Amino acid sequence: MPDGINVALIGGERIGRVHAQNLAHRIPSAKLSLVVDTDFDAAQRLAGLFDVGRVSNDYREALADPSIEAVLICSSTDTHAAISRQAAHAGKHIFCELPISQSLAELDETLRVVDNAGVKFQVGFNRRFDANFKRVHEAIRSGEIGEPSLLHIVSRDPAPPSIDYIRTSGGLFLDVSIHDFDMARYLIGAEVEEIFTMAGVRVDPRIGQAGDVDTALMMVRFTNGVIGSIDNSRRAVYGLDQRVEVLGSAGSIATLNNYANQAIVSDNTGVRRDVPLNFFMDRYTDSFIAEVSAFVDAILRDAPVPVSGEDGRISVVMALAAAQSHREHRPVRLDEVLVERKGLQERAGSAF
Amino acid sequence: MPDGINVALIGGERIGRVHAQNLAHRIPSAKLSLVVDTDFDAAQRLAGLFDVGRVSNDYREALADPSIEAVLICSSTDTHAAISRQAAHAGKHIFCELPISQSLAELDETLRVVDNAGVKFQVGFNRRFDANFKRVHEAIRSGEIGEPSLLHIVSRDPAPPSIDYIRTSGGLFLDVSIHDFDMARYLIGAEVEEIFTMAGVRVDPRIGQAGDVDTALMMVRFTNGVIGSIDNSRRAVYGLDQRVEVLGSAGSIATLNNYANQAIVSDNTGVRRDVPLNFFMDRYTDSFIAEVSAFVDAILRDAPVPVSGEDGRISVVMALAAAQSHREHRPVRLDEVLVERKGLQERAGSAF
Amino acid sequence: MPDGINVALIGGERIGRVHAQNLAHRIPSAKLSLVVDTDFDAAQRLAGLFDVGRVSNDYREALADPSIEAVLICSSTDTHAAISRQAAHAGKHIFCELPISQSLAELDETLRVVDNAGVKFQVGFNRRFDANFKRVHEAIRSGEIGEPSLLHIVSRDPAPPSIDYIRTSGGLFLDVSIHDFDMARYLIGAEVEEIFTMAGVRVDPRIGQAGDVDTALMMVRFTNGVIGSIDNSRRAVYGLDQRVEVLGSAGSIATLNNYANQAIVSDNTGVRRDVPLNFFMDRYTDSFIAEVSAFVDAILRDAPVPVSGEDGRISVVMALAAAQSHREHRPVRLDEVLVERKGLQERAGSAF
Amino acid sequence: MPDGINVALIGGERIGRVHAQNLAHRIPSAKLSLVVDTDFDAAQRLAGLFDVGRVSNDYREALADPSIEAVLICSSTDTHAAISRQAAHAGKHIFCELPISQSLAELDETLRVVDNAGVKFQVGFNRRFDANFKRVHEAIRSGEIGEPSLLHIVSRDPAPPSIDYIRTSGGLFLDVSIHDFDMARYLIGAEVEEIFTMAGVRVDPRIGQAGDVDTALMMVRFTNGVIGSIDNSRRAVYGLDQRVEVLGSAGSIATLNNYANQAIVSDNTGVRRDVPLNFFMDRYTDSFIAEVSAFVDAILRDAPVPVSGEDGRISVVMALAAAQSHREHRPVRLDEVLVERKGLQERAGSAF
Repeated sequence: MPDGINVALIGGERIGRVHAQNLAHRIPSAKLSLVVDTDFDAAQRLAGLFDVGRVSNDYREALADPSIEAVLICSSTDTHAAISRQAAHAGKHIFCELPISQSLAELDETLRVVDNAGVKFQVGFNRRFDANFKRVHEAIRSGEIGEPSLLHIVSRDPAPPSIDYIRTSGGLFLDVSIHDFDMARYLIGAEVEEIFTMAGVRVDPRIGQAGDVDTALMMVRFTNGVIGSIDNSRRAVYGLDQRVEVLGSAGSIATLNNYANQAIVSDNTGVRRDVPLNFFMDRYTDSFIAEVSAFVDAILRDAPVPVSGEDGRISVVMALAAAQSHREHRPVRLDEVLVERKGLQERAGSAF
Repeated sequence: MPDGINVALIGGERIGRVHAQNLAHRIPSAKLSLVVDTDFDAAQRLAGLFDVGRVSNDYREALADPSIEAVLICSSTDTHAAISRQAAHAGKHIFCELPISQSLAELDETLRVVDNAGVKFQVGFNRRFDANFKRVHEAIRSGEIGEPSLLHIVSRDPAPPSIDYIRTSGGLFLDVSIHDFDMARYLIGAEVEEIFTMAGVRVDPRIGQAGDVDTALMMVRFTNGVIGSIDNSRRAVYGLDQRVEVLGSAGSIATLNNYANQAIVSDNTGVRRDVPLNFFMDRYTDSFIAEVSAFVDAILRDAPVPVSGEDGRISVVMALAAAQSHREHRPVRLDEVLVERKGLQERAGSAF
Repeated sequence: MPDGINVALIGGERIGRVHAQNLAHRIPSAKLSLVVDTDFDAAQRLAGLFDVGRVSNDYREALADPSIEAVLICSSTDTHAAISRQAAHAGKHIFCELPISQSLAELDETLRVVDNAGVKFQVGFNRRFDANFKRVHEAIRSGEIGEPSLLHIVSRDPAPPSIDYIRTSGGLFLDVSIHDFDMARYLIGAEVEEIFTMAGVRVDPRIGQAGDVDTALMMVRFTNGVIGSIDNSRRAVYGLDQRVEVLGSAGSIATLNNYANQAIVSDNTGVRRDVPLNFFMDRYTDSFIAEVSAFVDAILRDAPVPVSGEDGRISVVMALAAAQSHREHRPVRLDEVLVERKGLQERAGSAF
Repeated sequence: MPDGINVALIGGERIGRVHAQNLAHRIPSAKLSLVVDTDFDAAQRLAGLFDVGRVSNDYREALADPSIEAVLICSSTDTHAAISRQAAHAGKHIFCELPISQSLAELDETLRVVDNAGVKFQVGFNRRFDANFKRVHEAIRSGEIGEPSLLHIVSRDPAPPSIDYIRTSGGLFLDVSIHDFDMARYLIGAEVEEIFTMAGVRVDPRIGQAGDVDTALMMVRFTNGVIGSIDNSRRAVYGLDQRVEVLGSAGSIATLNNYANQAIVSDNTGVRRDVPLNFFMDRYTDSFIAEVSAFVDAILRDAPVPVSGEDGRISVVMALAAAQSHREHRPVRLDEVLVERKGLQERAGSAF
């Protein structure tokens, strides 16, 4: 079997490292040929772990190399859009982590460039590839629960990130909720037209001092009349808590969390099991493999990618609408964000 | 042991029948002495079932009888307030089903009369006495889950009532949500200050034609900063679905539904159990006994009732705010309802 | 409505008290007219609680009273058979708690007397009337899980009774396992032909000193080829643990325990719920009502009782076989017990 | 990082293929250098899938190659012992699938040879490395459930293998139960001294015609007084069903099955989830990686292997005792098998 297409990884921290490991061992149709990180030593260490021959501290080396067919952009958020545009100009297929940009104008410009270049562009909504959420998606598509009417999404992190991270994260809505906005669209198969947000600082006052919130409840209305809630918290002490529930005319479907083991202990204090998997890399292992496999397949078969730049864009619009609803204390329609785009963007990077 | 205090039941349908049975067999400290129903034959049949000696088709007979110490008002909703006031004048202790009145002015007048009369006045929020919700209440009070931050309430009926019933029900918010509004306050131990509603007709278009909604999602903000959602539907085909979930700083607590049996069948199509209990009288059997027992105890010990007229009033205010939010498509503060009381009441009975 | 048939309760402790309460409040077709207990004061207290007019310290008063149609025999185990025979002679219908007798000879004589008298005779296998086990029974009868092949019964008490009780209990097999032997027959719908026992003292050495075991695992083979295990322990610290599981050709069915509430707490130590219901009177409340209701119905309709004296007899034979298997360390066929009856009985009360 | 030790795989079907994939991608400390299969084309196909450079149809090529440090013996059962002995003579470390031999004499001879050669010898009891069973093991070791007293193991395959496979499998006890015998010892941390078996043909009469049983219930008694049951079936239509439960003085621990997703569907027929994982390779993926990783680690660190040849031997002794108990219809002590070894072996391959 051939080694598959040559891929360069740009950004080797956290999720970049996950993709590196998967490319090395779990995705036979692709080969990780180059690891790029602004920290050259870090790039070398990562390359050493996974038998990657080449490293660089400059992503332009990846773009200039004609043997590289695709790049995985896992660098810091503020570089996603610019690298994507340059990669598109260089004719590379692109897998881009979230968000594409915190600025809608830059995001739109990026999508235009990518589109003109005719390269594949997939964004990293890995949860679409998770067995639990896929099962819900199938139940809705197949009619197993009839016509959906109510949706609930719970998405809580085990613990807040550092305040430094919070400051550059774009805020809860762009950093956390964005995955749930995509999940909402993916599951219901319709667009959200309006969002209402109630949010606050319940976990750590320093998050509030950094201009962000750590706890939010959002209500969304879809074009097809479905109504939903999205619950986000930076802290669920019992572990990563990511569940959905959909009520339809013929039934409901709900997902539970995943656990490291299925053992139940009963003693005189109660009946208990260990906490859910509390690290997203353990929880979503298979989905990270599946999303990049799907990206590579789309390249090999010249087929559409399963998660498009437009998907990445709409989730950002939803995040901006959610933030605006919170600021203005009223329901905000997505088309307001589009119309008032310029003003919003100026605020978007700072208000949360 | 003495037979306990003499009680008259006013209204012998549905919930009235439940109370009659419980008074006859399960609440030794009270004796059902008189059954009143506008349908004299129905009153006689009910009395026959439970060995009650006297029946009447006029509630004033109960009020005029000095041996009767307390009345349970289970008659049609539009009579609750007037009978309560007359019972108070007659010095009877009062257990009143929900809502006290759909009109806030009449409700306030009723509470004033009752208060002046110095009689006990308890409203029928039976779910406070259910083992599941009590357990959640205790977890929050005891600090078991730390400081609460997010609340979810799901409350779905198995099937919608008749359209005739819908027409006189006061609408989804006064007929169904009112129980969840009280549950929200009971669990969090704080008042709601603001409500935002998204609602629609998803179950039966005739409900919409009758001026009501059948599906609603409400978001509430409490004075202590907790944020919550309330999910109501007139139809969950799998049965009565009433659950709550609270996230706190030290953990979460969530309730599952109750089932008639704990058997699990595994076959080649999946692993399944029978549907939840789908009739509220089966699901809440014990809570109906407990609430009336508590009422009788409060009389016997001359102690405060566990659910006050003010509790009944606030839930109506919340229902009016939820309805107003739906009409005006914006978050509505509860103090707006209080201020604009008069105008609201004129609309309240008709808009939903 | 008439008060139903007149019933006398003989023996007012523990289970007798449960039946008294149920007859007073939950079984409209019967009236508890007389409470008999050798402790006259205890009889009076019980009668006072449930408005029973008459008490006695001599069961013969119940047998002599022509207005009494049925007796519930809840007195000490060693009196069950003699009172049953006298009641039969007096023409009373009989509901008898377990076991009918620890002596198979006396048991057979008793069944003969009862049979000749033509009165109803029901034994107290209440678990047949429990919703969980009825559901399993139905699954097997209806073919929902196909042809059964393997059965497991777990039946563990929360804590051992007093050593004094142990001494007169007849031993674990006659005191505890007897219910599971009946459950096995009830569920599989066939007779057990052979039993093999491994047992020991794991809970309290004083139980061993009293000549009994506190932990046992039994294997049974049914005439239809089904094989099963029965797990008994005098102590499950987490509460009453009574479950069954049946594997069939088309699937399996298993029951979980019952809980006082359905709340789940998640914190940084795990995900837990409160312990199962740990008192048999709470756990089996409904089944005690149902079994006596069924007995009364059988009298009123002159229909066969749902649990016969023969059912009570076979469970005793199985207990004797289980004890013999434990003593002789080999599988024992039930027909060996029947053949060697006399010798066995002499040992039965003391050997284990 | 170095490529790790060179390993040869002997036998490329089913489990061999699993090990090949894991060595290729998941176990960085080992390198699969040679694939041996008597079917040369099959060896080539497997090698091609996982980038293995060399193939052979003769395991002696692996033994003769000084660069090969270890062999994984996954060939047909009847070759395990002979290849193990030759590999030991050649100084190769050995990972051997189960059973080492169906003949206790040959097994003992093999262990003697391996022992004299001083090579590592690990047997493939992968379930010891599964998260569920490890969790139970830890609960017992740590005292979390106190002193154990009762054990239950359920181990059911989704469907029987071909009759051809059955014929050479050594029978249910050596083919299936052997894993559960090891699990029993692993969990309880003591040896079994006696086994009693009830077994039959419930799944397919052709299995009986082939001289085997397809359904068995075994009872075991450990030297420390713990009593346990082992439930085996060749068919659980709902999928692979492998659970354990242990009752201890301070509580119990039980494992549930693993599922491909955590979604729950509720509709008017019930509340259900999809069937458990029903293919052992999916169910035990991680345990297969962990056991071979542990083997490689033991070589690299020159430490004892976690599952020894003696472990493999005792499980065979238990299988022989279980079979003898079935034949002779009585409890059989393990030391009977040891004493009567010779006669038993002659029967072992054919009698059941």
